[in-house]
Amino acid sequence: MRKSKFLVFSGSAHPKLGESICHYLNMDIGKVYFGRFPDGEIDIKVNSDVRGADVFVVQSVCPPVNENLMELLILIDCLKRASAERITAVIPYYGYARKDRKDEGRVPITAKLVADLLTTAGTNRVLTLDLHADQIQGFFDIPVDHLLARAIFIPYLNNMQIKKLSVVSPDIGSVKQASAYAKRLGAELAVTSKKRDFNTGQIVSMNVLGDVADKNVVIVDDMISTAGTIAEAARLVKAKGALDIYLCATHAVLCKDAVEQLRNCPAKEIIVSNSIPVPLEKLLPNMTVLSLGPYLGEAIRRINNSESVSYLFEHPVESCIMPQKEQM
Amino acid sequence: MRKSKFLVFSGSAHPKLGESICHYLNMDIGKVYFGRFPDGEIDIKVNSDVRGADVFVVQSVCPPVNENLMELLILIDCLKRASAERITAVIPYYGYARKDRKDEGRVPITAKLVADLLTTAGTNRVLTLDLHADQIQGFFDIPVDHLLARAIFIPYLNNMQIKKLSVVSPDIGSVKQASAYAKRLGAELAVTSKKRDFNTGQIVSMNVLGDVADKNVVIVDDMISTAGTIAEAARLVKAKGALDIYLCATHAVLCKDAVEQLRNCPAKEIIVSNSIPVPLEKLLPNMTVLSLGPYLGEAIRRINNSESVSYLFEHPVESCIMPQKEQM
Amino acid sequence: MRKSKFLVFSGSAHPKLGESICHYLNMDIGKVYFGRFPDGEIDIKVNSDVRGADVFVVQSVCPPVNENLMELLILIDCLKRASAERITAVIPYYGYARKDRKDEGRVPITAKLVADLLTTAGTNRVLTLDLHADQIQGFFDIPVDHLLARAIFIPYLNNMQIKKLSVVSPDIGSVKQASAYAKRLGAELAVTSKKRDFNTGQIVSMNVLGDVADKNVVIVDDMISTAGTIAEAARLVKAKGALDIYLCATHAVLCKDAVEQLRNCPAKEIIVSNSIPVPLEKLLPNMTVLSLGPYLGEAIRRINNSESVSYLFEHPVESCIMPQKEQM
Amino acid sequence: MRKSKFLVFSGSAHPKLGESICHYLNMDIGKVYFGRFPDGEIDIKVNSDVRGADVFVVQSVCPPVNENLMELLILIDCLKRASAERITAVIPYYGYARKDRKDEGRVPITAKLVADLLTTAGTNRVLTLDLHADQIQGFFDIPVDHLLARAIFIPYLNNMQIKKLSVVSPDIGSVKQASAYAKRLGAELAVTSKKRDFNTGQIVSMNVLGDVADKNVVIVDDMISTAGTIAEAARLVKAKGALDIYLCATHAVLCKDAVEQLRNCPAKEIIVSNSIPVPLEKLLPNMTVLSLGPYLGEAIRRINNSESVSYLFEHPVESCIMPQKEQM
Amino acid sequence: MRKSKFLVFSGSAHPKLGESICHYLNMDIGKVYFGRFPDGEIDIKVNSDVRGADVFVVQSVCPPVNENLMELLILIDCLKRASAERITAVIPYYGYARKDRKDEGRVPITAKLVADLLTTAGTNRVLTLDLHADQIQGFFDIPVDHLLARAIFIPYLNNMQIKKLSVVSPDIGSVKQASAYAKRLGAELAVTSKKRDFNTGQIVSMNVLGDVADKNVVIVDDMISTAGTIAEAARLVKAKGALDIYLCATHAVLCKDAVEQLRNCPAKEIIVSNSIPVPLEKLLPNMTVLSLGPYLGEAIRRINNSESVSYLFEHPVESCIMPQKEQM
Amino acid sequence: MRKSKFLVFSGSAHPKLGESICHYLNMDIGKVYFGRFPDGEIDIKVNSDVRGADVFVVQSVCPPVNENLMELLILIDCLKRASAERITAVIPYYGYARKDRKDEGRVPITAKLVADLLTTAGTNRVLTLDLHADQIQGFFDIPVDHLLARAIFIPYLNNMQIKKLSVVSPDIGSVKQASAYAKRLGAELAVTSKKRDFNTGQIVSMNVLGDVADKNVVIVDDMISTAGTIAEAARLVKAKGALDIYLCATHAVLCKDAVEQLRNCPAKEIIVSNSIPVPLEKLLPNMTVLSLGPYLGEAIRRINNSESVSYLFEHPVESCIMPQKEQM
Repeated sequence: MRKSKFLVFSGSAHPKLGESICHYLNMDIGKVYFGRFPDGEIDIKVNSDVRGADVFVVQSVCPPVNENLMELLILIDCLKRASAERITAVIPYYGYARKDRKDEGRVPITAKLVADLLTTAGTNRVLTLDLHADQIQGFFDIPVDHLLARAIFIPYLNNMQIKKLSVVSPDIGSVKQASAYAKRLGAELAVTSKKRDFNTGQIVSMNVLGDVADKNVVIVDDMISTAGTIAEAARLVKAKGALDIYLCATHAVLCKDAVEQLRNCPAKEIIVSNSIPVPLEKLLPNMTVLSLGPYLGEAIRRINNSESVSYLFEHPVESCIMPQKEQM
Repeated sequence: MRKSKFLVFSGSAHPKLGESICHYLNMDIGKVYFGRFPDGEIDIKVNSDVRGADVFVVQSVCPPVNENLMELLILIDCLKRASAERITAVIPYYGYARKDRKDEGRVPITAKLVADLLTTAGTNRVLTLDLHADQIQGFFDIPVDHLLARAIFIPYLNNMQIKKLSVVSPDIGSVKQASAYAKRLGAELAVTSKKRDFNTGQIVSMNVLGDVADKNVVIVDDMISTAGTIAEAARLVKAKGALDIYLCATHAVLCKDAVEQLRNCPAKEIIVSNSIPVPLEKLLPNMTVLSLGPYLGEAIRRINNSESVSYLFEHPVESCIMPQKEQM
Repeated sequence: MRKSKFLVFSGSAHPKLGESICHYLNMDIGKVYFGRFPDGEIDIKVNSDVRGADVFVVQSVCPPVNENLMELLILIDCLKRASAERITAVIPYYGYARKDRKDEGRVPITAKLVADLLTTAGTNRVLTLDLHADQIQGFFDIPVDHLLARAIFIPYLNNMQIKKLSVVSPDIGSVKQASAYAKRLGAELAVTSKKRDFNTGQIVSMNVLGDVADKNVVIVDDMISTAGTIAEAARLVKAKGALDIYLCATHAVLCKDAVEQLRNCPAKEIIVSNSIPVPLEKLLPNMTVLSLGPYLGEAIRRINNSESVSYLFEHPVESCIMPQKEQM
Repeated sequence: MRKSKFLVFSGSAHPKLGESICHYLNMDIGKVYFGRFPDGEIDIKVNSDVRGADVFVVQSVCPPVNENLMELLILIDCLKRASAERITAVIPYYGYARKDRKDEGRVPITAKLVADLLTTAGTNRVLTLDLHADQIQGFFDIPVDHLLARAIFIPYLNNMQIKKLSVVSPDIGSVKQASAYAKRLGAELAVTSKKRDFNTGQIVSMNVLGDVADKNVVIVDDMISTAGTIAEAARLVKAKGALDIYLCATHAVLCKDAVEQLRNCPAKEIIVSNSIPVPLEKLLPNMTVLSLGPYLGEAIRRINNSESVSYLFEHPVESCIMPQKEQM
Repeated sequence: MRKSKFLVFSGSAHPKLGESICHYLNMDIGKVYFGRFPDGEIDIKVNSDVRGADVFVVQSVCPPVNENLMELLILIDCLKRASAERITAVIPYYGYARKDRKDEGRVPITAKLVADLLTTAGTNRVLTLDLHADQIQGFFDIPVDHLLARAIFIPYLNNMQIKKLSVVSPDIGSVKQASAYAKRLGAELAVTSKKRDFNTGQIVSMNVLGDVADKNVVIVDDMISTAGTIAEAARLVKAKGALDIYLCATHAVLCKDAVEQLRNCPAKEIIVSNSIPVPLEKLLPNMTVLSLGPYLGEAIRRINNSESVSYLFEHPVESCIMPQKEQM
Repeated sequence: MRKSKFLVFSGSAHPKLGESICHYLNMDIGKVYFGRFPDGEIDIKVNSDVRGADVFVVQSVCPPVNENLMELLILIDCLKRASAERITAVIPYYGYARKDRKDEGRVPITAKLVADLLTTAGTNRVLTLDLHADQIQGFFDIPVDHLLARAIFIPYLNNMQIKKLSVVSPDIGSVKQASAYAKRLGAELAVTSKKRDFNTGQIVSMNVLGDVADKNVVIVDDMISTAGTIAEAARLVKAKGALDIYLCATHAVLCKDAVEQLRNCPAKEIIVSNSIPVPLEKLLPNMTVLSLGPYLGEAIRRINNSESVSYLFEHPVESCIMPQKEQM
């Protein structure tokens, strides 16, 4: 079905990503006014006509998480009431994704709550990237397209032609993703593991399961938050005899003293995506930011055009596979 | 139906109001841990057993509005999944209430969105106070008990035995509430009104409809936000010959230079409630903060006990009508 | 998106308005059989093929209110089951709109109930006019286009070039609408106000806030029901020295002895719309009925065509601004 | 679970039935004000405190059908918002029941719409009687208790000790109910059947399938509307040699010239229930109205008390089986 | 509205019917992999691109009923998540249709449950055939197109030019359908009826209401399950002097010893549809299987094309009325 | 809140587990008739009075998966319509749990579909055990209590006082659960890992990450389906020098040649729960089946009684920790 209008809006969390997507799509970004009332309430007015349009809203739910989430919800309510035909929430970084289960009694499942809030506000479909757990797709009853940043990370890594490569998961929870990288890179797999005393919770020993001695190592995680775990893993594999060490993570949350941690760890290169904006002051000299603009843009084009998106998971189109440092 | 357990929780927006409610109810406040993950995501764990309980969550959606709202939603999700029998959101100040209609094209109706988000999260009923528009009750399909702060403001004003009293609405939109006060105080009614040029939007003239000369005046509004309008109204009625001027508003949002505005306006006394916490540095010498604790507490007791709440609208129980300065 | 079929149906409340809309749109009205079973149950059969069509149903919920509302709900159920692609309820007069809040305990919010019933029956969007309270838009989660009859009343009044004009609200509740008229007409604003004894409810005094002496006066309300209030306001401003008096109201409910009241009040002209049919026997010589046909028709055309509707709020297209006496 | 409050309300369709139920239950009927606004809108205010109560609302959806249905919906909305714990709609006569399927294209299924409207308004469960089709129970997702008037009709008929009895269905659609009566009365079964020309729709011949000559005959239907069919059936079986003829129908709709039809047909006795009020002027000398009060009252008592209701289908308690002429 | 993609899928219950539909539509059937995990869980993967497509899923809920129903639900979930624009469940045989009401206490209404499960899984509309009760249409809030197999059975029977024809319903419950056949065939109507002792449940006598002696008889039912009732009816009318006997039923469930029953009963011809696959070993020499392929195919074409479907009820297009023995 | 009635029902998947639960609770199991119609449709009638009761339905969704799931759904529909106050689905083994995400395009998320079907049928809460992924809890908006079989497995293993213990995950996906066991047993952690060629999918090498030589090994998984992976892991750790090998898995699906695989692998003991019935012919001499009866029974008692369930996760009550061979 041909839609007569096709619009991409960006929330205020990461306007440059929205622009980069629109640049790929060769279109202007949708006009929307973001303001604040004196008491901090969000004020929104859409200035493009969206009636009957196929609308995409790009917003990462990155810090300040609650502000960005509420802005996204209000913008969607606004578009729904302005009679948009279909609203796709494009969420490169899905905040609260780690609260995806009750690991103890009387805690929320905030990732599910976020899914329900999005649906209530009027979202018709979701496009997202590297969810902390794949099962979050199932939190929605609306269609979800789940892109995988490895579609652009793998070609970037392959391009470096690293020999004797081992992919390391920095903890037990991330081993599946590391395994997927290892398989695609033809590399060995290893895991760093902490052993804690069950009663005190203190770390008794740290260990590496698998071979890293005399190997070049890529440590892979879905996100770098405080960078504590990944930096520790880097030091540990170094101590176990690793050669060059690369850190690789989709989402650069970089909170608390993350930059300090990364600066001081024995990593040759730190590769992240721009799912979250990386401000200049956090951009270390050995940090590479791969732009998601063309990859997300191509996915949006295909959704609007009712073409297959799953094709993109492993076969990014030409324009996507050329990774690029984000222009600051 | 007798409920075996009855619990009141407070969000972190205004813990002292929660305590004051529990003091009235002669019970301990529910235990809940509020934390933040390093990236600012809200972390919540309820430490009281709520299974099968009748639970009330007190949270004003005051600044920081989005943080307080998200905290409320996550806490409700948490209580729902912890098997609370019934969850009542007690919202003394309902944020985003002024976005209750589309006054122009392509804007959201955020007050309705908030209602829908609350219901989606698992709220079973709502207790709130002095909504900006009464119609917001109808935004919910769950029962709403809507208290009126005038139940404690009117006795306080009556107690002062002010003669020759005129109640003034500081703008057209608040005239209904002013009229309700006038009726109950046996006072005259007046309105201050701005005339704007339709094309430029500039104020052409200011006027008072009704009589204020040689009157003691109570200017009544539902909230004081930047205090611009109410301070201007005070100056205007002063210029028109008013005697003593009292400002009276339920919700003390007090943002931007509100305190400066109030300090400089010709008001003898400023009377607000503690629906929103008033920090010490904003507490002017001529400001009286009436505590809602007993009034809300009595309403909660009645809801838990299935007794009539509408009785409270005009007949507050003894313990409520004694207004008190909030203890700082 | 181009819809292949586009149909307008009219309920039996006001067939001439439906015809007038279709005349503007230059199309035939949809065929539907309305009958009654012997026991008074409504019988409906749609005789036009609506499968996959963009369908508009014009029905004012005017007296007999319950009959007209049920007919609308049944017709929408019928169109939904007949596979209409999209159903827009066009409700020029939204009945039960005054029950939009709980002004006391244990009363319904019938205006919200009506919104929920419409959604349940299968309505996809709503087009309505001069709701008693703007907030009723928020009672819906489906898109609502809310037209303002002043888009055709203001040009009509401007055309009369009345000098020294004051706009009067006949009671406190209608002052916002009067204010909007005053702003657009460059006129003064005044309010008539009753003072009642709080305990007995009896009117103690009547007053006019604002200036009407030696002014031409337009008294503006959203509807004329029994005409008691507006006629009283007319007499009062006359007594206060007003010159020519015009009554202006969107919805001519005209129940009980409204016609007698209007006949006997000192109004030079009474201007209403045909949102509700005005039967010949109620049409006073000094009554002007402005037709909504072109205005609603243009809005329907734009909705079907996915063009902006908010533009119409203040800039009616040429064909709409020429007000016309309804042809009886 | 013990409910602390238990209330029965009656709509205005048939107040005497509500009273008769409350008389059986030995309780006062709930207080509710029914009024009309000047324009005919329904005005309702509940005057009993219903917070936390188990509430039953008795309302037959009999003519005027739409008025009675809307009143029921508004009353339920009102009770929901007044915080009733559970609301059971008691609908002795379910209007629109005959529109329970699409027998041709582009017609509504109004009986389903009514079910959805009831649920939307806030009904938690339904108690009804002799639905036109049993499948209407499945229109609801809330629990439905479906009573069968034959629980009081069969004992009444048995008491008459009629010999040589044949039960006759007056048309093809009612044969299942007639069969249930025949089985319980140990009687023969017969059907009167019209043969129509398929193209013209005209009746070509009338016939009786089964034996009625020299039999006493009970003609059974679920309702008497215009009485055309049942009167014709009476004349036909008379012509075929029937002895005494009894007409038996649960719902006495009695519209158009039903009374005339019944007066002129060869029936010895006409037995109906008071699911619909039978006004004095329609009460023929040979008409017996069996009161449903005790039967419905006992069902309500059991629902409130969480006792089995299905037991009542075939084993009415002592107090129910004594049929009684309704007191006029 | 033109849909750009149009796809028909078949579940594994009856692949030949899907093929026959696609043959009529001159298109390839959609590609889908059906497998089983080792523990019997259903594994599905759709191999055609369905994004934005108008999709039809053909699946009869015939034995093994639960397997076929679950497969249908999972396939619909799969298509929904793969972003199909619209999903129509084409259910020639709707299983569990006989559990359409609570005929006693504490039983399910499984036919309603099935309707709710279909909607929950993501079905947007339903196309079905000869439901056991017409009211099942009302179990859905989504549009249902309900085809009637008599549209192809009546022309087939007319073609045989049978004289002195009587249509017989094999029991009380099926008399409406028999009546519809009789009307269209210009035939007499009769019913076979069992009289049971109410207390023991044993058959006391069997009888035929209406005339069958010296008549050619068509016994009509909606389905043949164990064939016990229809075979008994055949023997009974034979005993009452019937000439040629034809059995006519839409759904050939044929379970238990149905084939043996049919083989031994005095039927000249047994006419069924292929709504359920009839395996070769059940195909008696005197059994005719009329193909629904063209009839369903035409309905699907019209739904996709937004043309009227109700037209098909009595006026099958040329290509449908030529009944054909299914090719084995 | 005291519930007056409390009932536990069992589906037909595993009646002995239901009995064992009721034995712990010292109550009779609820009466329900399970039958089949001749065509295989499920027939259910509840014979205990459930009106107003707190009802638990025990049913593992084990093979035959679809039959057991449909039976559960129909039983819940039946209980809902019979007016049960609250229905808890007790699902010791949650079938389809492995389809919890879209690991490729155009596949269903059947585990979410199952959650939605359960909710649609009328489930009010869920009690389940060792979900394949914790995130499945978030598929529900109703409360889920998620028990962990390790609460009874860990005491059983501790009781054996095995020295030099290593816990091994048989593949990457199960490493989190193995890690939880290792932590609680104070053991080392290891993982067996397959390396596959990315293009051909063939296993290139098998490896053990971590130390197993000269260790006693417990291989832990959530379920044993075909037993291929776990048996292979056993052989591999044996080859790497492991001493005694124990297999430990909650759910004994045991399909295909699982028993043969287990018989031939070098395991000293195989420990499973009775979440799924283990028939005698599959019960190997070295297999221990720990009964979940007391553990589930205690959880049910606490839910009915509104006591904390999370306490049970790590502190099973006395009666639960004594593991027992299931009595055959």
